Amino acid sequence: MPPETRLDVLAIGDAVVDVIATADDEFLVEEGLVKGSMQVLDAAGATRLYARMSQARETSGGSAANTMAGIAALGGRAGFVGQVADDQLGEIFSHDIRALGVEFRTPPKSGGEPTGRCLILVTPDAQRTMNTFRGAAHELTAEALDPEQIRGAAILYLEAYLWRSAGPREAMEQAMAIAHAAGRKVAFTLSDIACIKPHRAEMIAMLEAGAVDLLFANENEIRELADLQDRDAAIAALQDKVPLIVVTCGAEGALAVARGERVSVPIARIGTGVVDTTGAGDLFAAGFLVGQAQGRNLGASLRIGAIAAAEIISHFGARPEADLKELVKSI
Amino acid sequence: MPPETRLDVLAIGDAVVDVIATADDEFLVEEGLVKGSMQVLDAAGATRLYARMSQARETSGGSAANTMAGIAALGGRAGFVGQVADDQLGEIFSHDIRALGVEFRTPPKSGGEPTGRCLILVTPDAQRTMNTFRGAAHELTAEALDPEQIRGAAILYLEAYLWRSAGPREAMEQAMAIAHAAGRKVAFTLSDIACIKPHRAEMIAMLEAGAVDLLFANENEIRELADLQDRDAAIAALQDKVPLIVVTCGAEGALAVARGERVSVPIARIGTGVVDTTGAGDLFAAGFLVGQAQGRNLGASLRIGAIAAAEIISHFGARPEADLKELVKSI
Repeated sequence: MPPETRLDVLAIGDAVVDVIATADDEFLVEEGLVKGSMQVLDAAGATRLYARMSQARETSGGSAANTMAGIAALGGRAGFVGQVADDQLGEIFSHDIRALGVEFRTPPKSGGEPTGRCLILVTPDAQRTMNTFRGAAHELTAEALDPEQIRGAAILYLEAYLWRSAGPREAMEQAMAIAHAAGRKVAFTLSDIACIKPHRAEMIAMLEAGAVDLLFANENEIRELADLQDRDAAIAALQDKVPLIVVTCGAEGALAVARGERVSVPIARIGTGVVDTTGAGDLFAAGFLVGQAQGRNLGASLRIGAIAAAEIISHFGARPEADLKELVKSI
Repeated sequence: MPPETRLDVLAIGDAVVDVIATADDEFLVEEGLVKGSMQVLDAAGATRLYARMSQARETSGGSAANTMAGIAALGGRAGFVGQVADDQLGEIFSHDIRALGVEFRTPPKSGGEPTGRCLILVTPDAQRTMNTFRGAAHELTAEALDPEQIRGAAILYLEAYLWRSAGPREAMEQAMAIAHAAGRKVAFTLSDIACIKPHRAEMIAMLEAGAVDLLFANENEIRELADLQDRDAAIAALQDKVPLIVVTCGAEGALAVARGERVSVPIARIGTGVVDTTGAGDLFAAGFLVGQAQGRNLGASLRIGAIAAAEIISHFGARPEADLKELVKSI
């Protein structure tokens, strides 16, 4: 039996500040952006796009960091490892994640890239198109890891956004080895289809090596990873490589597949409607992980995920605003 | 006849980024904060309070800057003069005000204080309590002025928040002289009761010298300036010193007094209710100034102000989100 845990989930991910502005469809066309996608910008590209964006609001973001924020908001014990610079956006990121009760100890870096940011364009249909300048976030190295912190967390949670960079991937591989040696579980989210295609073979090899116990994906991502057009065929092709696969299916809801068992739930609805879908997948993962950490079954874990996702899309920004504990207490 | 104008309103004010978080009443008591007030913090005090605040969102702010943002959103031609530093928050401020179409040319300063910020605590009753670290904003000097820009604006708009600092006040006095020499009007907002008491004699002297053509205040501020308990008595005591006085009266609405004529309007309502009162006075001023710039009468100008204020309190943040031009087009 592994010793007691100090954290439910410890994540390694991008430490970025979201810069959120509204935009119309024509703007996306003019800028050559694909709605709903995530692209990576260099410093010059980020400056150019920012100059053309309308007035923005800033909130702390990062996919895995949003998930940890959601876990803390749901009453879970969360930690986060990510790299910021020693600048104002780094201060904002560090303040916000700690203010939510997430353990965050990674020291800021001086003299390198500035803190990363994600320029998010929200169209009138509530879709978000993301343009990330990764900055310091991708300067994360294995030096930032604290083996004791990893061994003390029931689940290590990793995001493909950060994994696709060589330096951070090395850190993640060390972290996975430490977690498994301590008898802990490893969860991995596919993040975005753009992360998968260039790395499909390595990702499949990672799964076949047994490095991942729980895989999060949306429909497009699972199809991309399996290189199959049909969602269920894709899940079937992957399910012998991962003990638990969780797939979000947009308006259709979400499903979990574990050793032949398959459970699905519909979406949840909160408030007056969909304002901004930024963070929906991140918060779904938060709810599901909290359910698992509490020893709930797959159906209850999926339902907690669906409610957390519904809250986040009812307002701008990818961090919860309502009392998530209250929203899920009847599940 | 003065030559044609290039701008409707040019403001000189604090260039700050708002850091907005929710807080409960107990938090205000613990921190010794007076609800609804504005206090000035030094760098250490700002760091200490920020560390205790919950997760925040950042939007560009500053009272007079919000008013210019409102004027641009209403279709008016606005300019802003204010000091930011050469840092990330300065970039955010500059981006946002320009993205709204406000002319902003003041070069950022290097090597001095960082860009100013205002830590805003929003309580469940939608009241905002503001804690400003002024930073670079109060390093504004007369060197930042462009006399041609001042001469080209129909109205010069000044805020007491910034006026109470010696350096910026000197710049404002030069700007007022340039504006009046060019046949332009000068508007002044009293900003907050904390700005008035230590400077009452100088403010009265400024009004008696004919330096201000239009005075904006709320009920508390006008009483504080006149040093009288009764609002109407306060207005009566001041009306021979200023050609036009505009007073916002909270839930009661707003009124204008010009050479014996008195016009009042009730508040307007937009959306589901009051979320955050930050910026209500700023946007009211924006609407009133746009009305005046368009040659509308006092009643119509007050009504445009009331609608702009109603929009701003229906969401978090002090910059407009809805289409203000559409909202006021029937007036």
